[in-house]
Amino acid sequence: MQSIRVFAPATVANIVCGFDVLGFAVNAPGDEVILRIIGPPGVRIRAIHGDGGLLPLDPCRNTVSAVVMRYLEQTGDPGCGVEIELFKKMPVGSGLGSSAASTIAGLFAINTMKGNPLGQSQLLAIALEGERIACGQGHADNVAPALLGGFVLIRSYEPLDVIRLHTPAHLVCALVHPQIEIQTRDARRIIKKQIPLSDTVRQMGNVGAMVAGLYQEDDRLISRSMQDVIIEPTRAVLIPGFYRLREIALEQGALGFGISGSGPSIFALAASRGSAQMVVEALRKELFRDGIDSEGYVSSVNREGPSILEGEPASGEP
Amino acid sequence: MQSIRVFAPATVANIVCGFDVLGFAVNAPGDEVILRIIGPPGVRIRAIHGDGGLLPLDPCRNTVSAVVMRYLEQTGDPGCGVEIELFKKMPVGSGLGSSAASTIAGLFAINTMKGNPLGQSQLLAIALEGERIACGQGHADNVAPALLGGFVLIRSYEPLDVIRLHTPAHLVCALVHPQIEIQTRDARRIIKKQIPLSDTVRQMGNVGAMVAGLYQEDDRLISRSMQDVIIEPTRAVLIPGFYRLREIALEQGALGFGISGSGPSIFALAASRGSAQMVVEALRKELFRDGIDSEGYVSSVNREGPSILEGEPASGEP
Repeated sequence: MQSIRVFAPATVANIVCGFDVLGFAVNAPGDEVILRIIGPPGVRIRAIHGDGGLLPLDPCRNTVSAVVMRYLEQTGDPGCGVEIELFKKMPVGSGLGSSAASTIAGLFAINTMKGNPLGQSQLLAIALEGERIACGQGHADNVAPALLGGFVLIRSYEPLDVIRLHTPAHLVCALVHPQIEIQTRDARRIIKKQIPLSDTVRQMGNVGAMVAGLYQEDDRLISRSMQDVIIEPTRAVLIPGFYRLREIALEQGALGFGISGSGPSIFALAASRGSAQMVVEALRKELFRDGIDSEGYVSSVNREGPSILEGEPASGEP
Repeated sequence: MQSIRVFAPATVANIVCGFDVLGFAVNAPGDEVILRIIGPPGVRIRAIHGDGGLLPLDPCRNTVSAVVMRYLEQTGDPGCGVEIELFKKMPVGSGLGSSAASTIAGLFAINTMKGNPLGQSQLLAIALEGERIACGQGHADNVAPALLGGFVLIRSYEPLDVIRLHTPAHLVCALVHPQIEIQTRDARRIIKKQIPLSDTVRQMGNVGAMVAGLYQEDDRLISRSMQDVIIEPTRAVLIPGFYRLREIALEQGALGFGISGSGPSIFALAASRGSAQMVVEALRKELFRDGIDSEGYVSSVNREGPSILEGEPASGEP
């Protein structure tokens, strides 16, 4: 029996200015998957830890097992026996790319066990299908950074065209997950479907500037580009005291602040770990004042995507 | 008497995907200005060559003299006597940033004569006022690349925030000006004012990818990003045979093809001078087949902005 334990990172989609086109990965939190090749055919979930019973154990409905099944079909090995144990190490439905992290951990695990026959673009396509199962739509801005690591741009969804951007080493992410619930579907439903041309132009300017800021490692340019006139004004209402929280984050030295994915998690980018730590503490304190519990994370940007925690690589096969 | 002769480059605004936010400068064509400091106070235009009598000689209505006047007011020297001679070396109203080139040549000339008291951002603000005089709106996507050289991103118009992007040395521009007339005002009027969110997202992806492509010097990425779903479908109708012309440009090896600014000039980016030359010839041939005369230019990307052709720098003042 072979087994492998894989970590895959949480991700911050949108990065304020880049709705559906920008995202980055963090080193903490993240999910872990233990995947075992077993004798009896079929993919099954042995256990899920840390989800509070929220996630389905039915292998067809769970994204991790669903993508592993899809992987086995595509690689011509549908009868392979696989047992999955999932360790959720971040809140579900939090806007941190929770399902993408599990999906990528599972895919990376099975691909490693099989000797890496599929490349990143093929894995990405399978992972997007998994996301479609989990939230009705495949969001490459979570799965792509979880797989590639670093800052990622989705140039196009059809055909899928994903670009790994330059990722400055010094940037640190402050993440806070308030204990309130927003459904991704609801968060998308309230978004306006027609955008004034002038707002489209502003948003294009900010996305271009964010990309330039990353390549130039220009913190002030990154900071100026973290503005959103098309989505945030609508979604901010879902997070109590959003604009006060932003003010606090910027006062504490954050380069920029916004909603992580479709929320309710909020995030900030900072130029140092100390600064990110102060931002997290100040945000949690303010939320607590409003009677809202929260979890906080301070993390460097993940630059590698998933990683093997323990296990036997495919080259060790008998 | 002191005099200086200055060249300023033509510019390609929008670069297909970046309406109002992207532009670059070329080494040919471009306008030239001779500026003389004279005894009698006031700014006057001595002559304009090559405009076919189209441009106003009234110093308050001509953009070059208007920005020089504004410059003198701002630097506390409103009584200074200045004589301007303008050499139009490109067609007026062609979508090549003709007025921006003249404006920047004049501004650069007077600033040089005065010992460069104003920096680029101050010159840019004055130049935008000049553009407002010429076409009712100040378009930084022409004046900024004409002043800074290279590829330029306008992150924001208010406040003005202009970023000089990395400019690969090997890119060559093919420019063709068909002898048809489009008014900038008309070209703007037909643009849709509300954009579907999905198109906004596609455009954001392409702008981000274009910026990444420039920094990575990735020709294929630059090529893929040169797509426009918001403006081109409307403006293409103003240029006879537009889509056939694009097909021809791409067949000849162009990385991307589109309308320069608000047209009617069309342009292509190519990876070599030979390729750009073939594109220009093929495009002109196709236009001629449709009974349309045209002018063609092949030029490397201008990286310096304006340059002094002859004259005495300010340090030589008595």
